Amino acid sequence: MTSHNAQIDALVSLLSKLPGLGPRSARRAVLALIKKRESLMHPLARALDDVARNIVVCGTCGNLDTVSPCTICTDRRRDQSIICVVEEVADLWALDRAQGFSGQYHVLGGVLSALDGVRPEDLNIKTLIERVESGGIKEVILATNATVDGQTTAHYITDRLAGLGVTITAIAHGVPVGGELDYLDDGTIAQAMRARKPF
Amino acid sequence: MTSHNAQIDALVSLLSKLPGLGPRSARRAVLALIKKRESLMHPLARALDDVARNIVVCGTCGNLDTVSPCTICTDRRRDQSIICVVEEVADLWALDRAQGFSGQYHVLGGVLSALDGVRPEDLNIKTLIERVESGGIKEVILATNATVDGQTTAHYITDRLAGLGVTITAIAHGVPVGGELDYLDDGTIAQAMRARKPF
Repeated sequence: MTSHNAQIDALVSLLSKLPGLGPRSARRAVLALIKKRESLMHPLARALDDVARNIVVCGTCGNLDTVSPCTICTDRRRDQSIICVVEEVADLWALDRAQGFSGQYHVLGGVLSALDGVRPEDLNIKTLIERVESGGIKEVILATNATVDGQTTAHYITDRLAGLGVTITAIAHGVPVGGELDYLDDGTIAQAMRARKPF
Repeated sequence: MTSHNAQIDALVSLLSKLPGLGPRSARRAVLALIKKRESLMHPLARALDDVARNIVVCGTCGNLDTVSPCTICTDRRRDQSIICVVEEVADLWALDRAQGFSGQYHVLGGVLSALDGVRPEDLNIKTLIERVESGGIKEVILATNATVDGQTTAHYITDRLAGLGVTITAIAHGVPVGGELDYLDDGTIAQAMRARKPF
Protein backbone atom coordinates (compact mmCIF):
# COMPACT_ATOMS: atom_id res chain seq x y z
CA MET A 1 0.00 0.00 0.00
CA THR A 2 1.37 3.39 -0.99
CA SER A 3 -1.20 5.89 0.20
CA HIS A 4 -4.54 5.53 1.97
CA ASN A 5 -6.25 5.93 -1.38
CA ALA A 6 -7.16 3.02 -3.65
CA GLN A 7 -7.06 5.06 -6.87
CA ILE A 8 -3.55 6.37 -6.21
CA ASP A 9 -2.41 2.87 -5.23
CA ALA A 10 -3.88 1.42 -8.44
CA LEU A 11 -2.05 4.00 -10.56
CA VAL A 12 1.26 3.39 -8.74
CA SER A 13 0.85 -0.35 -9.17
CA LEU A 14 0.17 -0.07 -12.93
CA LEU A 15 3.03 2.38 -13.54
CA SER A 16 5.46 0.14 -11.63
CA LYS A 17 4.80 -2.59 -14.22
CA LEU A 18 6.46 -0.49 -16.94
CA PRO A 19 10.03 -1.49 -17.81
CA GLY A 20 12.46 0.82 -16.03
CA LEU A 21 10.04 1.81 -13.26
CA GLY A 22 9.88 0.18 -9.83
CA PRO A 23 7.49 0.93 -6.96
CA ARG A 24 9.60 3.87 -5.72
CA SER A 25 9.94 5.59 -9.08
CA ALA A 26 6.27 4.88 -9.83
CA ARG A 27 5.32 6.74 -6.62
CA ARG A 28 7.52 9.68 -7.63
CA ALA A 29 5.96 9.63 -11.09
CA VAL A 30 2.42 9.68 -9.66
CA LEU A 31 3.22 12.66 -7.42
CA ALA A 32 4.78 14.47 -10.39
CA LEU A 33 1.66 13.71 -12.44
CA ILE A 34 -0.69 15.03 -9.74
CA LYS A 35 1.40 18.21 -9.43
CA LYS A 36 1.23 18.74 -13.19
CA ARG A 37 -2.38 17.72 -13.68
CA GLU A 38 -3.18 20.01 -16.59
CA SER A 39 0.17 20.00 -18.37
CA LEU A 40 1.07 16.31 -17.99
CA MET A 41 -1.60 14.05 -16.49
CA HIS A 42 -4.56 14.90 -18.72
CA PRO A 43 -2.43 14.92 -21.91
CA LEU A 44 -0.87 11.57 -20.91
CA ALA A 45 -4.28 9.98 -20.32
CA ARG A 46 -5.44 11.24 -23.72
CA ALA A 47 -2.24 10.12 -25.49
CA LEU A 48 -2.55 6.62 -23.96
CA ASP A 49 -6.14 6.46 -25.07
CA ASP A 50 -5.25 7.59 -28.61
CA VAL A 51 -2.49 5.02 -28.97
CA ALA A 52 -4.56 2.20 -27.42
CA ARG A 53 -7.42 3.00 -29.77
CA ASN A 54 -5.63 3.73 -33.04
CA ILE A 55 -2.27 1.98 -33.27
CA VAL A 56 -2.27 -1.24 -35.28
CA VAL A 57 0.43 -3.69 -36.34
CA CYS A 58 1.32 -3.27 -40.03
CA GLY A 59 0.15 -6.39 -41.89
CA THR A 60 3.14 -6.20 -44.22
CA CYS A 61 6.18 -5.48 -42.08
CA GLY A 62 5.04 -5.69 -38.43
CA ASN A 63 5.75 -2.02 -37.65
CA LEU A 64 3.33 -0.03 -35.45
CA ASP A 65 1.27 2.72 -37.06
CA THR A 66 -2.25 4.08 -37.36
CA VAL A 67 -2.54 2.58 -40.83
CA SER A 68 -1.77 -0.85 -42.28
CA PRO A 69 0.29 -1.06 -44.52
CA CYS A 70 2.28 1.47 -42.49
CA THR A 71 3.69 4.77 -43.73
CA ILE A 72 7.14 3.20 -44.24
CA CYS A 73 5.73 0.40 -46.43
CA THR A 74 3.75 2.83 -48.57
CA ASP A 75 6.45 5.54 -48.82
CA ARG A 76 7.34 5.49 -52.53
CA ARG A 77 10.52 7.54 -51.89
CA ARG A 78 11.93 4.52 -50.05
CA ASP A 79 13.64 1.68 -51.88
CA GLN A 80 11.05 -1.06 -52.34
CA SER A 81 13.61 -3.68 -53.37
CA ILE A 82 15.52 -3.95 -50.06
CA ILE A 83 14.12 -5.43 -46.85
CA CYS A 84 15.94 -5.04 -43.53
CA VAL A 85 14.99 -7.80 -41.07
CA VAL A 86 14.91 -6.79 -37.36
CA GLU A 87 13.87 -8.52 -34.15
CA GLU A 88 11.59 -5.91 -32.62
CA VAL A 89 9.89 -2.62 -33.44
CA ALA A 90 12.42 -0.90 -31.13
CA ASP A 91 15.20 -2.07 -33.49
CA LEU A 92 13.30 -0.66 -36.49
CA TRP A 93 13.05 2.70 -34.67
CA ALA A 94 16.76 2.61 -33.81
CA LEU A 95 17.77 1.93 -37.43
CA ASP A 96 15.43 4.60 -38.68
CA ARG A 97 16.77 7.19 -36.22
CA ALA A 98 20.30 6.46 -37.47
CA GLN A 99 19.11 7.43 -41.00
CA GLY A 100 21.53 5.01 -42.66
CA PHE A 101 18.87 3.05 -44.48
CA SER A 102 15.97 3.97 -46.70
CA GLY A 103 14.37 0.68 -47.70
CA GLN A 104 11.68 -1.54 -46.24
CA TYR A 105 11.66 -3.31 -42.88
CA HIS A 106 10.43 -6.64 -41.60
CA VAL A 107 9.86 -7.13 -37.85
CA LEU A 108 10.25 -10.75 -36.74
CA GLY A 109 8.67 -10.18 -33.32
CA GLY A 110 11.49 -11.98 -31.50
CA VAL A 111 14.22 -14.55 -32.11
CA LEU A 112 14.37 -18.33 -32.29
CA SER A 113 15.15 -19.71 -28.85
CA ALA A 114 15.26 -23.36 -27.84
CA LEU A 115 15.44 -22.25 -24.20
CA ASP A 116 12.31 -20.08 -24.36
CA GLY A 117 10.56 -22.43 -26.78
CA VAL A 118 10.32 -19.90 -29.62
CA ARG A 119 9.92 -21.79 -32.93
CA PRO A 120 10.02 -20.45 -36.51
CA GLU A 121 6.20 -20.47 -36.67
CA ASP A 122 6.08 -18.14 -33.64
CA LEU A 123 7.93 -15.45 -35.61
CA ASN A 124 6.94 -13.49 -38.72
CA ILE A 125 9.21 -15.59 -40.94
CA LYS A 126 6.51 -17.02 -43.20
CA THR A 127 5.38 -13.51 -44.17
CA LEU A 128 9.01 -12.58 -44.95
CA ILE A 129 9.35 -15.56 -47.32
CA GLU A 130 6.05 -14.56 -48.96
CA ARG A 131 7.25 -10.97 -49.44
CA VAL A 132 10.43 -12.22 -51.13
CA GLU A 133 8.56 -14.82 -53.21
CA SER A 134 6.07 -12.22 -54.45
CA GLY A 135 8.99 -10.63 -56.33
CA GLY A 136 10.64 -7.24 -56.65
CA ILE A 137 13.02 -7.82 -53.72
CA LYS A 138 16.74 -7.73 -54.61
CA GLU A 139 18.35 -7.74 -51.17
CA VAL A 140 17.50 -8.88 -47.64
CA ILE A 141 19.63 -7.29 -44.89
CA LEU A 142 19.77 -9.28 -41.66
CA ALA A 143 19.92 -6.91 -38.68
CA THR A 144 19.11 -9.29 -35.84
CA ASN A 145 21.09 -8.63 -32.65
CA ALA A 146 24.67 -9.89 -32.26
CA THR A 147 23.55 -12.50 -29.71
CA VAL A 148 23.58 -16.29 -30.05
CA ASP A 149 19.80 -16.38 -30.60
CA GLY A 150 19.93 -13.42 -32.99
CA GLN A 151 22.62 -15.05 -35.12
CA THR A 152 20.86 -18.45 -35.02
CA THR A 153 17.75 -16.74 -36.33
CA ALA A 154 19.78 -15.00 -39.05
CA HIS A 155 21.21 -18.35 -40.20
CA TYR A 156 17.76 -19.95 -40.19
CA ILE A 157 16.36 -17.14 -42.37
CA THR A 158 19.36 -17.43 -44.73
CA ASP A 159 18.55 -21.14 -45.21
CA ARG A 160 14.90 -20.44 -45.85
CA LEU A 161 15.65 -17.72 -48.41
CA ALA A 162 18.21 -19.84 -50.29
CA GLY A 163 17.26 -20.38 -53.92
CA LEU A 164 14.84 -17.46 -54.07
CA GLY A 165 17.39 -15.41 -56.05
CA VAL A 166 17.82 -12.67 -53.48
CA THR A 167 21.10 -11.26 -52.12
CA ILE A 168 21.39 -11.81 -48.38
CA THR A 169 23.61 -9.48 -46.36
CA ALA A 170 24.13 -8.78 -42.66
CA ILE A 171 24.95 -5.52 -40.89
CA ALA A 172 28.60 -5.24 -39.89
CA HIS A 173 29.80 -6.21 -36.44
CA GLY A 174 32.92 -4.54 -35.07
CA VAL A 175 34.17 -1.70 -32.90
CA PRO A 176 31.38 0.83 -32.18
CA VAL A 177 32.02 4.34 -33.50
CA GLY A 178 33.61 6.29 -30.63
CA GLY A 179 34.45 3.06 -28.82
CA GLU A 180 37.86 2.47 -27.27
CA LEU A 181 39.51 -0.92 -27.73
CA ASP A 182 40.55 -1.03 -24.09
CA TYR A 183 36.93 -1.02 -22.93
CA LEU A 184 35.57 -3.54 -25.46
CA ASP A 185 34.94 -7.23 -24.89
CA ASP A 186 37.25 -9.78 -26.52
CA GLY A 187 34.51 -11.15 -28.81
CA THR A 188 33.90 -7.76 -30.43
CA ILE A 189 37.63 -7.08 -30.89
CA ALA A 190 38.24 -10.53 -32.40
CA GLN A 191 35.29 -10.04 -34.77
CA ALA A 192 36.53 -6.56 -35.76
CA MET A 193 39.97 -8.05 -36.51
CA ARG A 194 38.55 -10.91 -38.59
CA ALA A 195 36.34 -8.52 -40.58
CA ARG A 196 39.18 -6.04 -41.33
CA LYS A 197 39.11 -4.24 -44.66
CA PRO A 198 41.60 -2.44 -46.93
CA PHE A 199 42.02 1.12 -45.63
CA MET B 1 11.18 11.64 -33.71
CA THR B 2 10.80 8.10 -32.45
CA SER B 3 8.57 6.38 -34.95
CA HIS B 4 6.84 7.55 -38.11
CA ASN B 5 3.65 7.99 -36.12
CA ALA B 6 2.68 11.23 -34.39
CA GLN B 7 0.52 9.54 -31.72
CA ILE B 8 3.32 7.19 -30.64
CA ASP B 9 5.78 10.09 -30.63
CA ALA B 10 3.42 12.18 -28.49
CA LEU B 11 3.08 9.37 -25.93
CA VAL B 12 6.85 8.80 -25.81
CA SER B 13 7.44 12.52 -25.35
CA LEU B 14 4.93 12.78 -22.46
CA LEU B 15 6.20 9.64 -20.71
CA SER B 16 9.79 10.88 -20.95
CA LYS B 17 8.80 13.88 -18.83
CA LEU B 18 8.16 11.63 -15.82
CA PRO B 19 10.92 11.55 -13.21
CA GLY B 20 13.11 8.48 -13.72
CA LEU B 21 12.21 8.06 -17.41
CA GLY B 22 14.28 9.37 -20.31
CA PRO B 23 13.55 9.13 -24.05
CA ARG B 24 15.00 5.62 -24.30
CA SER B 25 13.09 4.14 -21.36
CA ALA B 26 9.94 5.99 -22.48
CA ARG B 27 10.22 4.23 -25.88
CA ARG B 28 10.61 0.85 -24.16
CA ALA B 29 7.62 1.67 -21.95
CA VAL B 30 5.46 2.56 -24.95
CA LEU B 31 6.33 -0.71 -26.73
CA ALA B 32 5.55 -2.66 -23.53
CA LEU B 33 2.24 -0.83 -23.26
CA ILE B 34 1.28 -1.59 -26.87
CA LYS B 35 2.15 -5.27 -26.36
CA LYS B 36 -0.03 -5.39 -23.23
CA ARG B 37 -2.88 -3.28 -24.53
CA GLU B 38 -5.69 -4.98 -22.61
CA SER B 39 -3.84 -5.84 -19.40
CA LEU B 40 -1.81 -2.65 -18.98
CA MET B 41 -2.54 0.17 -21.41
CA HIS B 42 -6.33 0.45 -21.05
CA PRO B 43 -6.18 0.07 -17.24
CA LEU B 44 -3.42 2.69 -17.05
CA ALA B 45 -5.41 5.18 -19.13
CA ARG B 46 -8.44 4.60 -16.88
CA ALA B 47 -6.37 4.86 -13.66
CA LEU B 48 -4.82 8.14 -14.85
CA ASP B 49 -8.24 9.47 -15.67
CA ASP B 50 -9.63 8.41 -12.25
CA VAL B 51 -6.78 10.06 -10.36
CA ALA B 52 -6.85 13.23 -12.49
CA ARG B 53 -10.60 13.53 -11.96
CA ASN B 54 -10.99 12.55 -8.31
CA ILE B 55 -7.86 13.21 -6.28
CA VAL B 56 -7.91 16.42 -4.24
CA VAL B 57 -5.50 18.00 -1.78
CA CYS B 58 -6.73 17.61 1.82
CA GLY B 59 -7.68 21.06 3.13
CA THR B 60 -6.48 20.16 6.62
CA CYS B 61 -3.16 18.37 6.21
CA GLY B 62 -2.21 18.65 2.53
CA ASN B 63 -2.33 14.89 1.84
CA LEU B 64 -3.80 13.59 -1.44
CA ASP B 65 -7.09 11.70 -1.31
CA THR B 66 -10.52 11.51 -2.93
CA VAL B 67 -12.03 13.30 0.07
CA SER B 68 -11.11 16.43 2.03
CA PRO B 69 -10.49 16.16 4.98
CA CYS B 70 -8.61 12.99 3.98
CA THR B 71 -9.06 9.51 5.47
CA ILE B 72 -6.05 10.00 7.75
CA CYS B 73 -7.44 13.26 9.19
CA THR B 74 -10.86 11.70 9.84
CA ASP B 75 -9.60 8.32 11.15
CA ARG B 76 -10.70 8.36 14.81
CA ARG B 77 -8.40 5.41 15.64
CA ARG B 78 -5.42 7.70 15.03
CA ASP B 79 -4.10 10.02 17.72
CA GLN B 80 -5.63 13.44 17.05
CA SER B 81 -3.27 15.24 19.44
CA ILE B 82 0.01 14.68 17.58
CA ILE B 83 0.93 16.27 14.26
CA CYS B 84 3.94 15.11 12.27
CA VAL B 85 5.22 17.83 9.90
CA VAL B 86 6.70 16.62 6.60
CA GLU B 87 7.97 18.36 3.46
CA GLU B 88 6.11 16.44 0.78
CA VAL B 89 3.32 13.88 0.33
CA ALA B 90 6.02 11.32 -0.55
CA ASP B 91 7.45 11.76 2.98
CA LEU B 92 3.99 11.22 4.48
CA TRP B 93 3.68 7.98 2.49
CA ALA B 94 7.17 6.87 3.60
CA LEU B 95 6.38 7.49 7.29
CA ASP B 96 3.05 5.73 6.96
CA ARG B 97 4.60 2.68 5.28
CA ALA B 98 7.08 2.40 8.17
CA GLN B 99 4.06 2.08 10.52
CA GLY B 100 5.93 3.75 13.38
CA PHE B 101 3.41 6.58 13.79
CA SER B 102 -0.32 6.76 14.18
CA GLY B 103 -1.12 10.43 14.57
CA GLN B 104 -1.93 13.26 12.18
CA TYR B 105 0.27 14.71 9.44
CA HIS B 106 0.90 18.15 8.01
CA VAL B 107 2.45 18.51 4.53
CA LEU B 108 4.41 21.76 4.10
CA GLY B 109 4.66 21.44 0.32
CA GLY B 110 8.39 22.17 0.29
CA VAL B 111 11.08 23.83 2.42
CA LEU B 112 12.23 27.37 2.97
CA SER B 113 15.01 28.22 0.53
CA ALA B 114 16.70 31.56 0.05
CA LEU B 115 18.33 30.18 -3.10
CA ASP B 116 15.07 29.08 -4.73
CA GLY B 117 13.12 32.04 -3.30
CA VAL B 118 10.75 29.92 -1.20
CA ARG B 119 9.34 32.07 1.62
CA PRO B 120 7.23 31.03 4.65
CA GLU B 121 4.04 32.22 2.92
CA ASP B 122 4.76 29.83 0.02
CA LEU B 123 4.49 26.84 2.39
CA ASN B 124 1.55 25.50 4.41
CA ILE B 125 2.92 26.96 7.64
CA LYS B 126 0.01 29.32 8.38
CA THR B 127 -2.44 26.38 8.34
CA LEU B 128 -0.16 24.47 10.73
CA ILE B 129 -0.17 27.37 13.21
CA GLU B 130 -3.97 27.53 12.90
CA ARG B 131 -4.31 23.78 13.58
CA VAL B 132 -2.19 24.14 16.73
CA GLU B 133 -4.00 27.32 17.84
CA SER B 134 -7.40 25.70 17.42
CA GLY B 135 -6.46 23.45 20.37
CA GLY B 136 -6.27 19.74 21.12
CA ILE B 137 -2.69 19.37 19.85
CA LYS B 138 -0.14 18.24 22.44
CA GLU B 139 2.89 17.49 20.27
CA VAL B 140 4.30 18.59 16.92
CA ILE B 141 6.94 16.23 15.47
CA LEU B 142 9.25 17.83 12.92
CA ALA B 143 10.16 15.33 10.22
CA THR B 144 11.62 17.62 7.57
CA ASN B 145 14.62 16.16 5.76
CA ALA B 146 18.10 16.26 7.30
CA THR B 147 19.24 18.87 4.79
CA VAL B 148 20.23 22.49 5.43
CA ASP B 149 16.90 23.77 4.04
CA GLY B 150 14.94 21.09 5.91
CA GLN B 151 16.55 21.99 9.22
CA THR B 152 16.17 25.73 8.57
CA THR B 153 12.47 25.15 8.01
CA ALA B 154 12.26 23.08 11.21
CA HIS B 155 13.85 25.92 13.19
CA TYR B 156 11.52 28.48 11.64
CA ILE B 157 8.46 26.39 12.56
CA THR B 158 9.81 25.94 16.11
CA ASP B 159 10.02 29.74 16.45
CA ARG B 160 6.50 30.24 15.11
CA LEU B 161 5.04 27.60 17.47
CA ALA B 162 6.81 29.00 20.55
CA GLY B 163 4.36 30.08 23.24
CA LEU B 164 1.46 28.01 21.92
CA GLY B 165 1.94 25.44 24.70
CA VAL B 166 2.78 22.53 22.43
CA THR B 167 5.68 20.10 22.79
CA ILE B 168 7.96 20.24 19.74
CA THR B 169 10.08 17.21 18.91
CA ALA B 170 12.12 16.13 15.90
CA ILE B 171 12.71 12.65 14.50
CA ALA B 172 16.11 11.20 15.44
CA HIS B 173 19.10 11.52 13.13
CA GLY B 174 21.83 8.90 13.34
CA VAL B 175 23.07 5.67 11.84
CA PRO B 176 20.40 4.05 9.62
CA VAL B 177 19.24 0.61 10.74
CA GLY B 178 21.37 -1.92 8.86
CA GLY B 179 23.90 0.78 8.01
CA GLU B 180 27.63 0.20 8.41
CA LEU B 181 29.76 2.96 9.94
CA ASP B 182 32.47 2.48 7.33
CA TYR B 183 30.09 3.49 4.53
CA LEU B 184 28.46 6.47 6.27
CA ASP B 185 29.33 10.11 5.83
CA ASP B 186 31.15 11.97 8.60
CA GLY B 187 28.20 14.25 9.37
CA THR B 188 25.88 11.33 10.15
CA ILE B 189 28.48 9.59 12.31
CA ALA B 190 29.25 12.79 14.25
CA GLN B 191 25.52 13.38 14.80
CA ALA B 192 25.00 9.77 15.95
CA MET B 193 27.85 10.19 18.42
CA ARG B 194 26.51 13.52 19.78
CA ALA B 195 23.01 12.05 20.16
CA ARG B 196 24.19 8.91 21.99
CA LYS B 197 21.93 7.43 24.68
CA PRO B 198 22.28 5.15 27.72
CA PHE B 199 22.28 1.55 26.47
